[in-house]
Amino acid sequence: MAVKLQSYDESSISSLQPQQGIFNPSSYHCSSSTRPKMASSYGARLVVPIDVKKKPREQKLPLHNRWHPDIPPVAEATVGEVFRVEMVDFSGEVSQRNTLPRTSRMPILQFGPIRISDKDGIPAQPGDLLVVEICNLGPLPGDEWGFTATFDRENGGGFLTDHFPCATKAIWYFEGIYAYSPQIPGVRFPGLTHPGIVGTAPSTELLNIWNKRERELEENGVKSLKLCEVVHQRPLASLPSTKGCVLGGIKEGTPEWEKIAVEAARTIPGRENGGNCDIKNLSRGSKVYLPVFIEGANLSTGDMHFSQGDGEIAFCGAIEMSGFLELKCEIIRDGMKEYLTPMGPTPLHVNPIFEIGPVEPRFSEWLVFEGISVDESGKQHYLDATVAYKRAVLNAIDYLSKFGYSKEQSYLLLSCCPCEGRISGIVDAPNAVATLAIPTAIFDQDIRPKTNKVPVGPRIVRTPDVLKCTYDGNLPTTRNPSSAT
Amino acid sequence: MAVKLQSYDESSISSLQPQQGIFNPSSYHCSSSTRPKMASSYGARLVVPIDVKKKPREQKLPLHNRWHPDIPPVAEATVGEVFRVEMVDFSGEVSQRNTLPRTSRMPILQFGPIRISDKDGIPAQPGDLLVVEICNLGPLPGDEWGFTATFDRENGGGFLTDHFPCATKAIWYFEGIYAYSPQIPGVRFPGLTHPGIVGTAPSTELLNIWNKRERELEENGVKSLKLCEVVHQRPLASLPSTKGCVLGGIKEGTPEWEKIAVEAARTIPGRENGGNCDIKNLSRGSKVYLPVFIEGANLSTGDMHFSQGDGEIAFCGAIEMSGFLELKCEIIRDGMKEYLTPMGPTPLHVNPIFEIGPVEPRFSEWLVFEGISVDESGKQHYLDATVAYKRAVLNAIDYLSKFGYSKEQSYLLLSCCPCEGRISGIVDAPNAVATLAIPTAIFDQDIRPKTNKVPVGPRIVRTPDVLKCTYDGNLPTTRNPSSAT
Amino acid sequence: MAVKLQSYDESSISSLQPQQGIFNPSSYHCSSSTRPKMASSYGARLVVPIDVKKKPREQKLPLHNRWHPDIPPVAEATVGEVFRVEMVDFSGEVSQRNTLPRTSRMPILQFGPIRISDKDGIPAQPGDLLVVEICNLGPLPGDEWGFTATFDRENGGGFLTDHFPCATKAIWYFEGIYAYSPQIPGVRFPGLTHPGIVGTAPSTELLNIWNKRERELEENGVKSLKLCEVVHQRPLASLPSTKGCVLGGIKEGTPEWEKIAVEAARTIPGRENGGNCDIKNLSRGSKVYLPVFIEGANLSTGDMHFSQGDGEIAFCGAIEMSGFLELKCEIIRDGMKEYLTPMGPTPLHVNPIFEIGPVEPRFSEWLVFEGISVDESGKQHYLDATVAYKRAVLNAIDYLSKFGYSKEQSYLLLSCCPCEGRISGIVDAPNAVATLAIPTAIFDQDIRPKTNKVPVGPRIVRTPDVLKCTYDGNLPTTRNPSSAT
Amino acid sequence: MAVKLQSYDESSISSLQPQQGIFNPSSYHCSSSTRPKMASSYGARLVVPIDVKKKPREQKLPLHNRWHPDIPPVAEATVGEVFRVEMVDFSGEVSQRNTLPRTSRMPILQFGPIRISDKDGIPAQPGDLLVVEICNLGPLPGDEWGFTATFDRENGGGFLTDHFPCATKAIWYFEGIYAYSPQIPGVRFPGLTHPGIVGTAPSTELLNIWNKRERELEENGVKSLKLCEVVHQRPLASLPSTKGCVLGGIKEGTPEWEKIAVEAARTIPGRENGGNCDIKNLSRGSKVYLPVFIEGANLSTGDMHFSQGDGEIAFCGAIEMSGFLELKCEIIRDGMKEYLTPMGPTPLHVNPIFEIGPVEPRFSEWLVFEGISVDESGKQHYLDATVAYKRAVLNAIDYLSKFGYSKEQSYLLLSCCPCEGRISGIVDAPNAVATLAIPTAIFDQDIRPKTNKVPVGPRIVRTPDVLKCTYDGNLPTTRNPSSAT
Repeated sequence: MAVKLQSYDESSISSLQPQQGIFNPSSYHCSSSTRPKMASSYGARLVVPIDVKKKPREQKLPLHNRWHPDIPPVAEATVGEVFRVEMVDFSGEVSQRNTLPRTSRMPILQFGPIRISDKDGIPAQPGDLLVVEICNLGPLPGDEWGFTATFDRENGGGFLTDHFPCATKAIWYFEGIYAYSPQIPGVRFPGLTHPGIVGTAPSTELLNIWNKRERELEENGVKSLKLCEVVHQRPLASLPSTKGCVLGGIKEGTPEWEKIAVEAARTIPGRENGGNCDIKNLSRGSKVYLPVFIEGANLSTGDMHFSQGDGEIAFCGAIEMSGFLELKCEIIRDGMKEYLTPMGPTPLHVNPIFEIGPVEPRFSEWLVFEGISVDESGKQHYLDATVAYKRAVLNAIDYLSKFGYSKEQSYLLLSCCPCEGRISGIVDAPNAVATLAIPTAIFDQDIRPKTNKVPVGPRIVRTPDVLKCTYDGNLPTTRNPSSAT
Repeated sequence: MAVKLQSYDESSISSLQPQQGIFNPSSYHCSSSTRPKMASSYGARLVVPIDVKKKPREQKLPLHNRWHPDIPPVAEATVGEVFRVEMVDFSGEVSQRNTLPRTSRMPILQFGPIRISDKDGIPAQPGDLLVVEICNLGPLPGDEWGFTATFDRENGGGFLTDHFPCATKAIWYFEGIYAYSPQIPGVRFPGLTHPGIVGTAPSTELLNIWNKRERELEENGVKSLKLCEVVHQRPLASLPSTKGCVLGGIKEGTPEWEKIAVEAARTIPGRENGGNCDIKNLSRGSKVYLPVFIEGANLSTGDMHFSQGDGEIAFCGAIEMSGFLELKCEIIRDGMKEYLTPMGPTPLHVNPIFEIGPVEPRFSEWLVFEGISVDESGKQHYLDATVAYKRAVLNAIDYLSKFGYSKEQSYLLLSCCPCEGRISGIVDAPNAVATLAIPTAIFDQDIRPKTNKVPVGPRIVRTPDVLKCTYDGNLPTTRNPSSAT
Repeated sequence: MAVKLQSYDESSISSLQPQQGIFNPSSYHCSSSTRPKMASSYGARLVVPIDVKKKPREQKLPLHNRWHPDIPPVAEATVGEVFRVEMVDFSGEVSQRNTLPRTSRMPILQFGPIRISDKDGIPAQPGDLLVVEICNLGPLPGDEWGFTATFDRENGGGFLTDHFPCATKAIWYFEGIYAYSPQIPGVRFPGLTHPGIVGTAPSTELLNIWNKRERELEENGVKSLKLCEVVHQRPLASLPSTKGCVLGGIKEGTPEWEKIAVEAARTIPGRENGGNCDIKNLSRGSKVYLPVFIEGANLSTGDMHFSQGDGEIAFCGAIEMSGFLELKCEIIRDGMKEYLTPMGPTPLHVNPIFEIGPVEPRFSEWLVFEGISVDESGKQHYLDATVAYKRAVLNAIDYLSKFGYSKEQSYLLLSCCPCEGRISGIVDAPNAVATLAIPTAIFDQDIRPKTNKVPVGPRIVRTPDVLKCTYDGNLPTTRNPSSAT
Repeated sequence: MAVKLQSYDESSISSLQPQQGIFNPSSYHCSSSTRPKMASSYGARLVVPIDVKKKPREQKLPLHNRWHPDIPPVAEATVGEVFRVEMVDFSGEVSQRNTLPRTSRMPILQFGPIRISDKDGIPAQPGDLLVVEICNLGPLPGDEWGFTATFDRENGGGFLTDHFPCATKAIWYFEGIYAYSPQIPGVRFPGLTHPGIVGTAPSTELLNIWNKRERELEENGVKSLKLCEVVHQRPLASLPSTKGCVLGGIKEGTPEWEKIAVEAARTIPGRENGGNCDIKNLSRGSKVYLPVFIEGANLSTGDMHFSQGDGEIAFCGAIEMSGFLELKCEIIRDGMKEYLTPMGPTPLHVNPIFEIGPVEPRFSEWLVFEGISVDESGKQHYLDATVAYKRAVLNAIDYLSKFGYSKEQSYLLLSCCPCEGRISGIVDAPNAVATLAIPTAIFDQDIRPKTNKVPVGPRIVRTPDVLKCTYDGNLPTTRNPSSAT
């Protein structure tokens, strides 16, 4: 059978030229309401630009590091459009990236707020749900690196500060989807990249609730809470403070600034508005359903992480980096009432929900460490998942030291690699059981226990180790006294 | 090309007959030490048989419901062989399966102990690691059903007993890998089947540690622990008790029995020996590395679950069933020292580690609920993952009520379906962030939030609902007073 | 807060006793039409029992090894009920399992037929779709082993018979979900267990279509088809034959038997009715939608495989075993017209569709071999995926020989381990590109290429090797003449 | 317990400043040879830049569209460094993107060659293996769209050109990881983005082998190959041609150009050097092991696909786009001999191998279509996987038309969505069984067969449909004559 290969007749497709509207996005037609409306042009619209070489206060659009309803939006976005937000790392300390992190009291930067409206120009309203789809994200081009660090105990510490009182730091370099660190040789893993912060602005009423309950904790907690004996990270809460306060478009020193600064909530904890939840699964393709508390929603984001383990235990504990987000929003009108039920004294006591995206890194083999709610002094706690998780993490850190890592290296590693922390059992009183699952594929050696003790292949040399400062504090540690190391 | 098809010459393969040893398993030869030695015959050797129609005390081999070094082994197994352990459900109440569960004080049955030795007949020694591979497991043939239940608050309650004070129960029927319940229509899911209990016998020294610390908790905990105000499950700990005590081969009423019964630890919490950890991932193909505290290891198991969610929140909260395990053991000599580091006052303060198996059910879409460490009264707790997880679970339960489920149905469902409970953030003081991820594929409707409020497809009718007893207690609940429902 | 632990009041739940019908399955109520109706009792009803110690003709229910509309059902099942079918391996040669397989002309056994009716007793009708859910499956208890084999080239051969003309065999033993073989040391993998055969009985019209087209192939194919020069397996087709014919309830030697035997289709190829498709993904939880050609559907099954690689290249190439299936059926009335479109000269030219189940073994790392449609003699074929796949398989076999395996071992291994064979490219003329992906976790050594050539860990010793007969045929092989080995 | 929060002492970490070398990448030290050496600076070095607004011949570096050893490298890269290659789509027809594709004879562009050397400056040598890790890839910023198209039958056609003789086209827009098309409403899926082309330059000897075998096919194939009756795509092979030939740094019209142009192999088929294999799994994190045939390896790449289904059936069938690659190379010296075994008449008859990356999109539910090697006319073929796959694809296309799609829409969709094409059975003569698995989550409706025929939710409207030209050819199609549609 012969086939004639003719030259293509350009005229036969002249009717397909865009000027005649066939490719016009507005002709996109689908009866299903769940289909996205097509963007008027491809590519994400940059609404928050960043220059990584500049300091926070020098950026084109003002940044902020507090939650407050009166911080004005710096940009607007419409439902259905894909828009881009760029950011420096949480600290914004671009000039000091090779130093150790200072203190957990450092304010954490936010990028935005962005006012969200529907296609008719009507902004999101209190009571709506704001659906934020994370279409894409990543490091900023030319700035493909990050760091993981612990704070010195006297400057805040972290989840295991009683065991690891010194500030430490590891630098990570990115090779596309992978990160590796000169300070933690022998591991390399794909990032489950995500923003630590995605949140809407609180209303004044919600802000007051936050400040009241956190102040009560700060004032009474250390005495009344047993957990404070186990988790030595301090302060218990970071209360509003004018020190280091940055309020976006509100000019510092004005009466308005003074008023807002004394009541604006610190960025650090995740709360009803989402915020700095540090949930590692908020990555590509995930969808967050955020409650809306003020008109326009005033969406802010920040604290990009190339990768993080569940818990972000080292505190400055993900792979902290600069980066970009490409987001697309929808508004579910009256969605708070429709989908969220308050679980507290007011209708504002809600929490966001989210869907996990389809491209999380895939691991098939996991080595898992258990912990129970008995602390390192041997004291029994009651169904305390925090104590149990601390034990699981400590067990894992000590285990990894069998394979050539220092404990400081392991602490940083478990804070930023894609490990999973689970509440496995929470009813078998008095012991909660928490588990920490580590994907074995991130190591270049087989870290599973073996009957054969002969080392297989070359072992890792611990040089150089993680960067440490010299700690000369005098607080006792609770490190297991029976342990020789 | 023609091909001649000859009849096969039987004589040419006569040398392959087994009598000539070619198939003899002992000729299996592999220089790799990680390869399993071949069983002398295929199939698992039944070492602990069960008749599900008989009561616990009528079984062929004696059962036990305590941990104690002096409970004698009922069977032996050798490293490398696959052996089978059968069991009734945790309660052993075969005649009362259609009643509601009585009380959380019910003793939990164990099957074994099984003494483990190497191929030279040398038993496992204190300080060794016992590697237990779960080769297979499942319901007992002819008994393919189970149940999920909550206890009445005054009989123990569960994780959410302050919200759900009544005993409730759902029956689940199995269709191969799937479970469904007449009481919770519209869901069907594959089981991640596992034993709630896998553990080794404690030494006397370890037993003393357990009893001391749990007694201290029971005596002082309610007053000293803030978490007791949030988690209302009681008692705080179940101390040794002669009531209902079953000690395997130790005859009841003898002086030996009396002595052991007053010191033997209750089955209920997971501890250093593994035990009743209720970790849902200990399923087919997983490998548990258990510390050995006494000669022979004295491995016991029990509490088969067809499926369980992380936390097993309802307490009697997995799909409880009878079942079988096929296990294979290895011994890592001196493995405790080699691989586990004590994290507490003595070298016995260790925890097991495990590897996850390769056939866990696969889900790609998850709807996730967040919770922070603010309790339902609005009180702020400090990095408390238990409080945060309680909030996440409560949020999920209320959410599911939008889709036709009663809250009791959802409570039971989230306790037993393959949902994941994660400690997502544990450093952003004061809020721990816990998340509960539910696989959406287990529902026959789309449970994701939608902008389109028109119901898609038929809704579920809540008839019949979960079975409930009439609660007439008078303890106050902490249920959110601002909530209308 | 004190908590009173009362004894449980039995009377308060007396109304929950089953005699009062609350647990009555018929009260199960769900408005969703996709919910399964509850079985009248739990557990699967055994409809086809097997005694593995007996020969095929001695089994309680008659077996068959042909497709024909007049083979009478041996059992019945109703829509919604879970029923159990047991089977011996495809050959039924229970007494000869330690011999080498004889010939590819061996008839392949089927178990059934089972007549399927709805709850009103109305059987499936031609034109319906029969939905067969595979609820569970596995080896028969006490018979946990299987084998993988190649046929001698003159007795049929397999996909690579020109390279491997000798009959070979490996025995596999099962440890729960895992299989290992003394003949192929150093590998162990979880089974993706499935029946090679699931099919409905053909109508006379469909049977005639089959016989006509296969006869034409057998008569003319070798001369007219280029692929016959590349794939040396023979015969091209297995036509109806009275030799070895077993027709279930039709008594041998009767006129009816004679009539049916000369027209009944051989079991071996998969066809429009499903049948012996050897699709490895038809495992636990999968759902097959089979066209119905005669009243009652007459479902037959057989050829259980503990595991198989895509292609089943060795021919007797899965891990062949005895086993059981637990099935549940539904009927979609007129479903053939609704969901299947004939793709051929008649409305009977359709193929089944299926859904994959949720518990396939999970692997994260794959080493993949490419093949293009150039055969081993260097001849270029045109977009021929079979030639390309043959190349990919040959490449993989030779590769594995670098790691201590003989080529015969690798051939058997790739035939039965969970490897994936993909048609990656089918348009870049003249080369189709096929790929063979092997999960690296099944090996106890790292089989990936390395820059470091120093062997890591102990290497496998190839003793004992796969069992081989002495081949003394005289057909030329097409083995690459330039290869030294 | 009080905690003093001091200001951070900058001097204590002065020794950590980079000028003192601690962060110097060269101090990275790891005894494991498999660890990557650290790049001298972070971020990928751009070695092949592209301006998407310019035509191929206007780009800064010359492109090429042939394989030939004498095409000079346009860039160099060193082992261990991450370098970036940008590219326009395969056709380079930037000014005509809104027209229909012209012809399958269009030359396919390549980007490179890139000469690869080790850290001592010694280039890759013939016989080495070049390891190419795909660290990252994606669309070019600002150009986030692509297209899928079929060629008119008389201009080349595709896998199903006998059924779909007209040229068609769909435009896809990207929202981060997702693609959607106005022409195929109701679907949206994450991309498994990959380069269709990754290959090394052939040696003269290999080039001669290619040209000889392809010429023989072109001259004799149609007459001798049965598959040509089933797969109507033409020509059988694309032989060297000076028409449209672009040879990188070789200036057109020079004697050297004339010499090379008449012998340089066309880009289109994948061959021993890798090349245009169109393997969808070569995505982020994958590693390709390519044979090296000439000094420096001369790596070329091209044909970026946002997404593709196995087979790329529509020919211009992936989502074709411009894009970038970030690559990192290693050299395994003498690796061809070490890891590849020739499977043909010469040592050059090898194929690449690769490892799959860890971030492929995750799907849990698949609807699968079967096909057997009986063509649409009812003719039986012998174990022909191409025929079987054609049937499976045709079955799937017709099936999807039940859900509101035109067959042209489905043809394009199955060509570019992440569906999997498997060779499920290749030995059950005469029928090969191929399967096509479609992830159900890409649709906004439930496409599984249902007993309940009532439509669930709104149906898709097929307006606008895919763009089609008016076909006025006169070749007969083989469309099933018995089918009404």
